[in-house]
Amino acid sequence: MSAGVITLGELAEGAGARLLGDASVEITGAAPIEDAGPGEITFISEKKYLDRLATTGASAVIVDEEAAAGHAGARPSLLVASNPQLAFAKVLGVLRPPRRPPAGIHPRAEVHPGANLGEGVSIGPFAVVEEGARIGDRAVLYPGVYVAAGAAVGADSVLHAGVAVREGCLIGRRVTIHCNSVVGSDGFGYARDGEAYVKIPQTGIVRVEDDVEIGACTTVDRATLGQTVIGRGTKIDNLVQIAHNVRVGEHTVMAAQVGIAGSTTVGDGVQLGGQVGVAGHVNIGDRVMAGAKSGVHGNVPAGEVLSGYPAIPHNVWLKSSMVMPRLPELRKKIRELEKRIAEMEEGG
Amino acid sequence: MSAGVITLGELAEGAGARLLGDASVEITGAAPIEDAGPGEITFISEKKYLDRLATTGASAVIVDEEAAAGHAGARPSLLVASNPQLAFAKVLGVLRPPRRPPAGIHPRAEVHPGANLGEGVSIGPFAVVEEGARIGDRAVLYPGVYVAAGAAVGADSVLHAGVAVREGCLIGRRVTIHCNSVVGSDGFGYARDGEAYVKIPQTGIVRVEDDVEIGACTTVDRATLGQTVIGRGTKIDNLVQIAHNVRVGEHTVMAAQVGIAGSTTVGDGVQLGGQVGVAGHVNIGDRVMAGAKSGVHGNVPAGEVLSGYPAIPHNVWLKSSMVMPRLPELRKKIRELEKRIAEMEEGG
Amino acid sequence: MSAGVITLGELAEGAGARLLGDASVEITGAAPIEDAGPGEITFISEKKYLDRLATTGASAVIVDEEAAAGHAGARPSLLVASNPQLAFAKVLGVLRPPRRPPAGIHPRAEVHPGANLGEGVSIGPFAVVEEGARIGDRAVLYPGVYVAAGAAVGADSVLHAGVAVREGCLIGRRVTIHCNSVVGSDGFGYARDGEAYVKIPQTGIVRVEDDVEIGACTTVDRATLGQTVIGRGTKIDNLVQIAHNVRVGEHTVMAAQVGIAGSTTVGDGVQLGGQVGVAGHVNIGDRVMAGAKSGVHGNVPAGEVLSGYPAIPHNVWLKSSMVMPRLPELRKKIRELEKRIAEMEEGG
Repeated sequence: MSAGVITLGELAEGAGARLLGDASVEITGAAPIEDAGPGEITFISEKKYLDRLATTGASAVIVDEEAAAGHAGARPSLLVASNPQLAFAKVLGVLRPPRRPPAGIHPRAEVHPGANLGEGVSIGPFAVVEEGARIGDRAVLYPGVYVAAGAAVGADSVLHAGVAVREGCLIGRRVTIHCNSVVGSDGFGYARDGEAYVKIPQTGIVRVEDDVEIGACTTVDRATLGQTVIGRGTKIDNLVQIAHNVRVGEHTVMAAQVGIAGSTTVGDGVQLGGQVGVAGHVNIGDRVMAGAKSGVHGNVPAGEVLSGYPAIPHNVWLKSSMVMPRLPELRKKIRELEKRIAEMEEGG
Repeated sequence: MSAGVITLGELAEGAGARLLGDASVEITGAAPIEDAGPGEITFISEKKYLDRLATTGASAVIVDEEAAAGHAGARPSLLVASNPQLAFAKVLGVLRPPRRPPAGIHPRAEVHPGANLGEGVSIGPFAVVEEGARIGDRAVLYPGVYVAAGAAVGADSVLHAGVAVREGCLIGRRVTIHCNSVVGSDGFGYARDGEAYVKIPQTGIVRVEDDVEIGACTTVDRATLGQTVIGRGTKIDNLVQIAHNVRVGEHTVMAAQVGIAGSTTVGDGVQLGGQVGVAGHVNIGDRVMAGAKSGVHGNVPAGEVLSGYPAIPHNVWLKSSMVMPRLPELRKKIRELEKRIAEMEEGG
Repeated sequence: MSAGVITLGELAEGAGARLLGDASVEITGAAPIEDAGPGEITFISEKKYLDRLATTGASAVIVDEEAAAGHAGARPSLLVASNPQLAFAKVLGVLRPPRRPPAGIHPRAEVHPGANLGEGVSIGPFAVVEEGARIGDRAVLYPGVYVAAGAAVGADSVLHAGVAVREGCLIGRRVTIHCNSVVGSDGFGYARDGEAYVKIPQTGIVRVEDDVEIGACTTVDRATLGQTVIGRGTKIDNLVQIAHNVRVGEHTVMAAQVGIAGSTTVGDGVQLGGQVGVAGHVNIGDRVMAGAKSGVHGNVPAGEVLSGYPAIPHNVWLKSSMVMPRLPELRKKIRELEKRIAEMEEGG
């Protein structure tokens, strides 16, 4: 990565970090510690990489207080922060400010006269904003975005190319949704009528709260009645399925390809690994962690750590998984024991 | 949900239900039984919720004959139906008729003069209909839909924003496809040529029969030769993968993130839970049920109920799954038994 | 499938196959051996289907040398090739040459004057090419494709409708990407700040090398720093997730719904079955094969064949899986053995 020239002093200020070194050094980019060279900044977040501090070609490294205390050399310069990864995130934001298309409505966008646009919005070519939709101040709709009738997108939110927000759905402020994701598709609800399935109209909406980020090609279904909710600050990766009437709490993270079935409640601060599946109509407590690919079929109390299919406590799963490959051997041993016992019983 | 004002009598008629109560009561919306208030209608489909009948604030509740017989009070009004959920689906359809954009071709749609359009079609801005494509009467193409050359969309079908139907594919009547799904992408077929893979041209099509519903971001691949088929009345959720030459029967349901590998046949009335995977070149019989996340690797006779990875009969899987967390303990017991037997053998 | 008329001689030449039969026979289509009739060509790649050679209605069949040697009859005509499947792929390519929209920029495409277009490119309606983007000779952008600022698409590549290539990403030559896939969405990276997650700007790119094919609704995330790489000749199916900083080697295949977590390296000639998940920061060696739905959580040496969740050697998994359904029975047997031993111990 290379970008405009910024001094180390400016970066330290932007990251809220203490500078040990020359504030006037010019930084042009960032790189992983093994690749970083002159003019570049990097960070160390784990103790095991601390020995790289002496050998890195980087002009500056972000470290924590402990690492800084143990570092004697004059170079590289150090930015000292209690959370080096967080400081690095801020440094990257200064070095490479997010791209922002210019404000304005592209002449090839289709914006209904009955839509309500805030100040400084940017609406790209072939985007569609239907009647009664509201686009908040400085919000960005990239090309081909679709905001249906009566939907709302909050201030400073960014919808990347191809995102669809169906009718009446509410997107909060500072929300980012990546390309081709869908918010407000119909929930999967049918009533049986003999062999056939009759659609239950999905008349609710989706409400996405402030500071949420949603990945690419992810789907969030509207509620049958009421709302499907994604809570404030929650981060959802690509290709995730959130079914109708699901309620996700705040500051929860879901890795790619997770699926949450209908009417399930997911708490605050939950972490779901990639390809996790959660059954419908269950309660996942706050701060629950579910390992990648696990299948959660029932209620989970707050703070539990689960893995497996079906999901069980993670440490139990680890031990059981180690026995799995030995099942044929165990079966054989049981047969041998049976035989030996039978011989003894006969002999006795 | 709130909508236009409709009387209870009209709703009873629309739902084919018997009314116990005042036909002139005005109903403005529907809600779950725990939230419903005056002017709202709800339903009870399970016996365990019957006690809520006495306490609900709803103006009307849809119940079955048995519940109606056991209900003495004057309120709420009852709509009595043999299948309350089905009646509720119909009531919702009356209360909130499906949104329908006005007929007509938006000036910013790109429709080839050699396309064939039925009466009353609605084609939104930035939709594309290529040469030789046919759009049936009253079909709706939302913004950005792509119907490629020679493809056909049947009467009264609805393609939501961003749907792509590739060349030559056939979509039946009253089909709904949700945002950003793809019908007719190339099947995943290659021939090896040393290290490299050479593409096998995917020259077939997809045929989607009448009354099918397909969720958002779902992909249905075209056949190598011949047709990939989705049978009449089948319902497919979001993010599902249907590979080339798969044949899905009628009135089958697949929950989100299911994947069906190439050339597999799925029968009628099948139910596949979320994230189920089905191997290629196998036969899934009629009315088979596979639990969420199961991995089906072989043929399955009609009527079987499966779970697990690899999938086994559901009741066997339930019992085996309960032993899983105890494997370390079982292994320990076997070791103890070995020791005790060895001691006895030595002692003997 | 039916198409223009081509003679058997022309097909043999196109496929590099030896013809046993009449070169002037006209072939109009291809079909599976059980369906093929007069004027159609088919192929046999497995010995078990050789007896169909005598009964097929096809005018010509592609077979290997061994099958040709064993075939006495005058019909059907034979095309003899060392790899019949590969020859069939080539025959299909001759019979049904890939569809190609005419060169030119549709007046309803939005191409920035500062974009760089090669010769003979085809850009469909509602496609967007931003400033500084480069489109190679003869590349095809179908309707609604989005190529962001500074991105590049190599010569002879085809982006199907709705594909998004985000800023700065590099697509090689002869690459095909199917509808609604996304290249260059932000990686899923955050730093904790108390309860909240702070976005780590994803400042890298995606580089897709030559001759790659990517399915529909697949997502490939840009790197945090540096590049996410898809190596030359690799084929990726639908709904696959490739996370930030993943490096995939050459001639690797991934079936639908695979997910690869961040910073993982996948070697050359690897085969991943449908719905496989691979953890982050691991190394998958060359020619590794992972069975459908397996969960790979650690490094895998070259050439290994894995299955299961967690993944273990495939043959071990097969045997262990067969014991799984018998776990309840094994537990019961262990209890019985315990009892019998206790009785003997007491008796002794």
